[in-house]
Amino acid sequence: MDIIEKLRDIVGDRASASPAERLCYSSDASMVSGTPDYVVRPLSTAEVSMVVELAAAEGVPVTARGAGTGLAGGAVAVRGGIVLDMSGMNRIVEMDLANLAVVVEPGVVQARLNEALKPSGFFFPPDPGSANFCTLGGLIANNGSGMRSVKYGTTRNYVLDLEVVLADGSVVRTGSRTLKAAAGYDLTRLFIGSEGTLGVITGAVLRVAPLPKARRLVIASFNSAEEAGQAVAATFAAGIVPSACEILDRMTVAVLRRCDPSLRLPDGDVLLFEVDGSEGAAAEAAAEIAALCSAAPGAASVATASGAGEMEEIWAARRLVGAAVSRLDPTKSRIYVGEDVGVPIKEIPAMRREVSEISDRFGIPAMKYGHIGDGNLHVALFIDVLDDGEWARLAGAADAIHRAAIRLGGTVSSEHGIGAARSEYMNEQLGEGAISVMRAIKRALDPKGIMNPGKLGLDDDYGPPSGGEG
Amino acid sequence: MDIIEKLRDIVGDRASASPAERLCYSSDASMVSGTPDYVVRPLSTAEVSMVVELAAAEGVPVTARGAGTGLAGGAVAVRGGIVLDMSGMNRIVEMDLANLAVVVEPGVVQARLNEALKPSGFFFPPDPGSANFCTLGGLIANNGSGMRSVKYGTTRNYVLDLEVVLADGSVVRTGSRTLKAAAGYDLTRLFIGSEGTLGVITGAVLRVAPLPKARRLVIASFNSAEEAGQAVAATFAAGIVPSACEILDRMTVAVLRRCDPSLRLPDGDVLLFEVDGSEGAAAEAAAEIAALCSAAPGAASVATASGAGEMEEIWAARRLVGAAVSRLDPTKSRIYVGEDVGVPIKEIPAMRREVSEISDRFGIPAMKYGHIGDGNLHVALFIDVLDDGEWARLAGAADAIHRAAIRLGGTVSSEHGIGAARSEYMNEQLGEGAISVMRAIKRALDPKGIMNPGKLGLDDDYGPPSGGEG
Repeated sequence: MDIIEKLRDIVGDRASASPAERLCYSSDASMVSGTPDYVVRPLSTAEVSMVVELAAAEGVPVTARGAGTGLAGGAVAVRGGIVLDMSGMNRIVEMDLANLAVVVEPGVVQARLNEALKPSGFFFPPDPGSANFCTLGGLIANNGSGMRSVKYGTTRNYVLDLEVVLADGSVVRTGSRTLKAAAGYDLTRLFIGSEGTLGVITGAVLRVAPLPKARRLVIASFNSAEEAGQAVAATFAAGIVPSACEILDRMTVAVLRRCDPSLRLPDGDVLLFEVDGSEGAAAEAAAEIAALCSAAPGAASVATASGAGEMEEIWAARRLVGAAVSRLDPTKSRIYVGEDVGVPIKEIPAMRREVSEISDRFGIPAMKYGHIGDGNLHVALFIDVLDDGEWARLAGAADAIHRAAIRLGGTVSSEHGIGAARSEYMNEQLGEGAISVMRAIKRALDPKGIMNPGKLGLDDDYGPPSGGEG
Repeated sequence: MDIIEKLRDIVGDRASASPAERLCYSSDASMVSGTPDYVVRPLSTAEVSMVVELAAAEGVPVTARGAGTGLAGGAVAVRGGIVLDMSGMNRIVEMDLANLAVVVEPGVVQARLNEALKPSGFFFPPDPGSANFCTLGGLIANNGSGMRSVKYGTTRNYVLDLEVVLADGSVVRTGSRTLKAAAGYDLTRLFIGSEGTLGVITGAVLRVAPLPKARRLVIASFNSAEEAGQAVAATFAAGIVPSACEILDRMTVAVLRRCDPSLRLPDGDVLLFEVDGSEGAAAEAAAEIAALCSAAPGAASVATASGAGEMEEIWAARRLVGAAVSRLDPTKSRIYVGEDVGVPIKEIPAMRREVSEISDRFGIPAMKYGHIGDGNLHVALFIDVLDDGEWARLAGAADAIHRAAIRLGGTVSSEHGIGAARSEYMNEQLGEGAISVMRAIKRALDPKGIMNPGKLGLDDDYGPPSGGEG
C-alpha cells in the first residue's frame, strides 16, 4: 500500500499528494522553499500520533506547520515528506482562569485567544507582529515574543504544560497546571523553541496575565540613534521597566510618514516607550520617562499619548513597518533575511554602526527598527527583485549582519527562529560543545531523524533521514 | 595509582578521603544521607573538568554540592564517589549592569550577590528562605525560588548563560549575554533544575532586575483558611500581581507569636500581601488589596505596613517559621518531609483539607504556610525524634501528602527539588512518557551514569553507575 493510502486510512480526504496542494505548502514567509510529498490536516492528537508512527515506520520526514508566517523556513519541508497542517486543531479547549490558565490546541491564532480572554480581564502576553495570523503552536515551537517581551518575557514564560507527539508516535505531557514546580528536567522549555525537531506540539496549557488597567506611550525623538540608545540606558538605570521599548530610525520614520502623512510621529530617530499598570502607576512611569528623555543629550521632542486611539494608530504603523518599506521606492521589495539579530543591550550602538557600514558596503538600503529594550534589532533590507546582482549583494549583506551579531556576543535570531534560513550559523554562534549537546538530545529523542530534518543546524553530522524524500 | 592520589594531582590537598571529612559531607538539610568516598574542593572550571574526566575514566559518581542547604538530598552522594564542594568558587566575576547582567561563580551565596547589587539599584529576584546561606549554583541546579516568585518568577527566568562541565569533562556554554534569543534548544533551561544529573555548573551569567522603589505589606486575617484563599482569588481576579502572597495558618501564627510576643500579627488565618513598584503604584495596589480583603467574607482584620522596619520584622518571622515550630512543644522537632507540595491554585483549599485529614489520621501535627499565590504549600510536620513510632507515622503522613498533591494535579516539589527524597514519586507525577524522555536525555548526556546518580527517579531502569562505589 502506498504511503498516501495509509495516510488516507488515518485522516481520510484530509491527506493529499496532489501537486497543487503540495505547492501550496512549499514555503512560508521566508525565502526558504521545499515541496512536501504529502500534506496532512489532522484534527486530533490521535491522528497526529498515527501519522507520526507511520512516518517513523516508513522513514519519512514530518514537518509541523501552523499558519506559515515563519520567517526562517521552520515549517517548510526542506527534505520532503509529510507536512502536518495543524491549523485545523484550533479549539480553545478550556478557560481555566481560576488557575490563571487556558488550555488550547496548537492551531489557535494568537489574537483569537486574546479576544476570548479580554472580557475576563486577562491576556496572553507574547505578541509577535504576526499576532493576527500566527498560531500558538508556531509561537511555542519558535519561542516567539514581540514588543512587550521587555517586560513580560517570551513565550517560554507562559507555558505550563505541553502535549507532544514524539518521533515514535507516542504522546507525552511535559508539565501540569501547577504554576511552579521543581520536579525533573524542564521538558516544557526543551520543546519550546525546538522548532518541531523533537516532536509535534498537539496541545498546551498556557499561563495568562491580568490585563493592565492603563497604558501610556511616550514618543521621544533624538538627533541621532546613538543618543536615543543612551536615553534607553538611562531609563533602565532609573529602574523603570517599560512594557515596550522600540526604536524607529529616521529612515523608518520617513517611510511610515510617507505611508500615512497624518501620522503623528516626529522627525529624527524615534523611541517609543510604552508603560502599563494601574492608572496612577502608568501615568507616573510615563512622566518619569518623559522627564528623563527631555533631559537626555540630543533630545529633539518628547510627547506622551494616553488616548487609546492615538496609541493604537502609532502601534499599527509600527506593525506595518515591514510591509511599508515598498513605499520608499516602488521598485524595491523587502526581503526577510538578516532581519532578527540580537545583541547584549550595551552593544546596540556597535550593532547599528555595523549595519550602516554593511548597508553602504553592499549598496543595500537598510532600515533599522526593533525591540531595543531586548537588544533585538530588526533590519529591513530591500532590493529590486528583478535584479540578480542585488540578490547576490543582499545575501552578502545578510551574512555580514549575522556574523557581526555573533561577533558582538549576540544571536542571529531573537524571536523569529533558526529554521533552515539560519542553520549555517548555529555552530559559530553556539559553539561546538553546545551543538554537540543539542545533537545528542536530538539523536536520543529522534533516532531516525524524521522530525523536521534540515533545521537548527542539527543535521551536519547527524545524517540524512532514512528515506522517503521522493 | 589510587583515585585519591590522582585527585591530589589535580587539586593538591583540596582532595581528601579522610573519614572525618567524608562524614562532614554525608548529609544536607534533609533526612537523606550517604557518605562520599572522596571530597574535592575545586577552585576553577579547569579543576572541575579534570576531576570529572577522571571520574568518567574510573566510573566513579560525581555529586556537586553548594552550601548543603538542600531539602531533598540533591547534594548527597547516595552512591558514594566524589563530592565536589563548589563553595570555594565564590567570586562575583563581573558586574555588567549596562547589560542588566552579572557573571558569577556557582559558590556565591545568594544574599552576598544582592548586597553587591544593592548600591547600583538592582537585585537578583529568586529569594529562597535559605538566601543567607545557599549558593547560586544550588539555586540554579534546583530552579529555586521563594516568596517573590508570584511576581518575579523562578530562577529559570534570571539565567542568561551557564558554563557547565559535562559528564566527559568537556566544558560548554549554554547561552550568551543577549537578553532574548530563539536559536536552538534551550540548554540553559535544561540544566536549570537538573540537580547535577547532567553536568556540573561552574559559572553563570544572571539577569538582574531594578530594585523597586517602594514596598507595602498588607496583613489580613480571616476566620478560616478557606475564606483567606477566596480573598487571594479575588485579588488575582482584580488584576493585581503582588510581589509576595503568603498564607500563615492559625497554628503557624500561634507559634510565631509564642516565639516573639511583641510580633504584630493578628489572630486567625493570616494572609501577607506584599506589593512593590514606585511609591505611588505600591500605595495604590496596597489600598486596593486592603479594600478587597476588608470586603471579603470572613475578614477579621486588615492592616497595612509601610515602614521598612515593621515589614522586615514580619518577613523575618515568616522566614523563621520552619525553625520556630519547636517552640510549640519543646519535645517536638520539625522534620523536612512532605514540605514542598504545590497544586493548581484553585485546588489549594482541597489540598489544605487533605493535609488536615492526613494530620489527624496519622496523629502528626501539621502547620500549613506557604506561597499561596503560586499554589505552593509548605507543610511542617513535627515529631518527637526519640519515638520510633512517630517516625513511622511521619513517613506515612509525608507519603500521603505527596500522593494527595499528585492526585490534585500538582507536584511533590514546587521549589526544593526532588533529589533522592522524592525520587519515588517521579513516575506517578510525570507519567511514564515524560520519565522516558528524561531518561533518554540522561543516557545521551551521561552514558556512564556518573553524574549525581540516584536522583530525580532517573535510575530505575537506567542501571547503576559502572563502579567506584567503594
